[in-house]
Amino acid sequence: MKLTILGCYSATPRALTNTTSQVLEINNHMFLIDCGEGTQVQLRKHKIKFNRIKHIFISHLHGDHFYGLVGLISTFRLLTREADLHIYGPKGIKEIITLQLKLADSWTNYNLYFHELTSKTSELIFEDEEVEVHTIPLDHRIYTNGYLFKEKEGNRKLDINLVEEANINVAYYRKLAQGFDVLNEDGILIKNSTVTKAGAKPKSYAFCSDTMYKVDIVPIIKNVDVLYHESTFLDKNANLATKTKHSTAKEAASIAKQANAGTLLLGHYSTRYGDLNLFKEEAEEVFDSVELSEDGKEFEF
Amino acid sequence: MKLTILGCYSATPRALTNTTSQVLEINNHMFLIDCGEGTQVQLRKHKIKFNRIKHIFISHLHGDHFYGLVGLISTFRLLTREADLHIYGPKGIKEIITLQLKLADSWTNYNLYFHELTSKTSELIFEDEEVEVHTIPLDHRIYTNGYLFKEKEGNRKLDINLVEEANINVAYYRKLAQGFDVLNEDGILIKNSTVTKAGAKPKSYAFCSDTMYKVDIVPIIKNVDVLYHESTFLDKNANLATKTKHSTAKEAASIAKQANAGTLLLGHYSTRYGDLNLFKEEAEEVFDSVELSEDGKEFEF
Repeated sequence: MKLTILGCYSATPRALTNTTSQVLEINNHMFLIDCGEGTQVQLRKHKIKFNRIKHIFISHLHGDHFYGLVGLISTFRLLTREADLHIYGPKGIKEIITLQLKLADSWTNYNLYFHELTSKTSELIFEDEEVEVHTIPLDHRIYTNGYLFKEKEGNRKLDINLVEEANINVAYYRKLAQGFDVLNEDGILIKNSTVTKAGAKPKSYAFCSDTMYKVDIVPIIKNVDVLYHESTFLDKNANLATKTKHSTAKEAASIAKQANAGTLLLGHYSTRYGDLNLFKEEAEEVFDSVELSEDGKEFEF
Repeated sequence: MKLTILGCYSATPRALTNTTSQVLEINNHMFLIDCGEGTQVQLRKHKIKFNRIKHIFISHLHGDHFYGLVGLISTFRLLTREADLHIYGPKGIKEIITLQLKLADSWTNYNLYFHELTSKTSELIFEDEEVEVHTIPLDHRIYTNGYLFKEKEGNRKLDINLVEEANINVAYYRKLAQGFDVLNEDGILIKNSTVTKAGAKPKSYAFCSDTMYKVDIVPIIKNVDVLYHESTFLDKNANLATKTKHSTAKEAASIAKQANAGTLLLGHYSTRYGDLNLFKEEAEEVFDSVELSEDGKEFEF
């Protein structure tokens, strides 16, 4: 599981900082999460192949989270993309994008699917053999969802020595990986657990931005490996966090602690602060494993 | 008259090139012309004071000319702008912007005025004591206007020695600058032309992008000091210019020649070409005074 931070600052793009966007690579999927203005340029800088992005998840309709979306969709068209593109986001996102494509007389030459969200409870919105994605209803000034990405239980790992000793035909290796007992060349049933081990533990990632401190999300993200939780403000500006429905670094850490997260990743910093380490220090008063997002930073989990 | 090129490439923003946007300073006005994605960052890089921009002119609703507008409007709001903002552009632009502000529940705290254009003939769309702005109807795939910016005849210049010799009271200097005859301290009428000279010749600037070769614009921009005319393609791709309703460098030069422009400024280059000098060379086969736009370049005329 690899996460690339394309932008992690709040409010407006500036010469050296970008608004929210990140790419999550998980089990051969490449998910784009939020898409602030300038995201397509950030994707180019990081040499991320546009065609690998097939699913884009937008948290809410504040500009710093989606003003780059229409440009990315248009660029895909100019690059003669053929692959389907799925957009998940709040109701209204389809109207915004299609109005602009219509007035530009520039409909896409690939299939563009909108999955508009309105539910106030967590939903499963994407699922295939490897991964599932659930919404995390957040509490911000407008309708907002975080997203929980979960790998499914992976294949079992064959112990090749034991498999060969057991005289199992290669044709059955896939069945073994899927956890089935199989017949060997002598017609004897071989118990799966005697020749395989459990595969890698499935990973999970939760993206929670923008939101005020909301304990209701804890059960949804319980035991998540990595939690990205917005921390727009430091504790001294907690009053602003309340007023604007954002969180402080300490509040983000409190959610991470209650959820028993593996690692807390902070981000969506207000640009009023010079030193990001202050966010880390405040969060570490509450929770041990804290990392700072920074534009361009890559995390492998 | 000063022109700052924020972006001059077609299609999509890339790591080192920007889509169309430019700032024209003329007679204390600061006009923003087109606003591709990332324009607000370009404005910051060039330290252009956001509050000085009171009028934005959008040529047409293709993304590379206006996808940065909604972000700029939002940033103005976050910076607690108070000054009025006037947007000129094709019908539909108001719906695009207001839909996004409505869904973000983020109406501006300053007055935002939309001046939607539909006319297919040139119109006077802005005028004050110093400057007037006219549309230049262009021929592109969708409804498009260029813009002609004209200084008005300026004040006359006082010859201070002659004025003092003529024994004119300081209180009358403003009247002299405005071209009036005045009474001197001895009650004698002094003819304006005997103590003043004509002021600086009023300057004019025409922005023509995007458009195919269209001779109808020549009378509108006749004798313009500086003509920015798009040149998306080189001559070898003239077929593409026709197909996509763009111009070649030679066609831009032909318009400049017929209009008797002072200087031709090329731009809106397709990103397929490596060497911009080829555009200049081709245009110079037709017209003498050719300059190349480049992102970040400033021109004083």
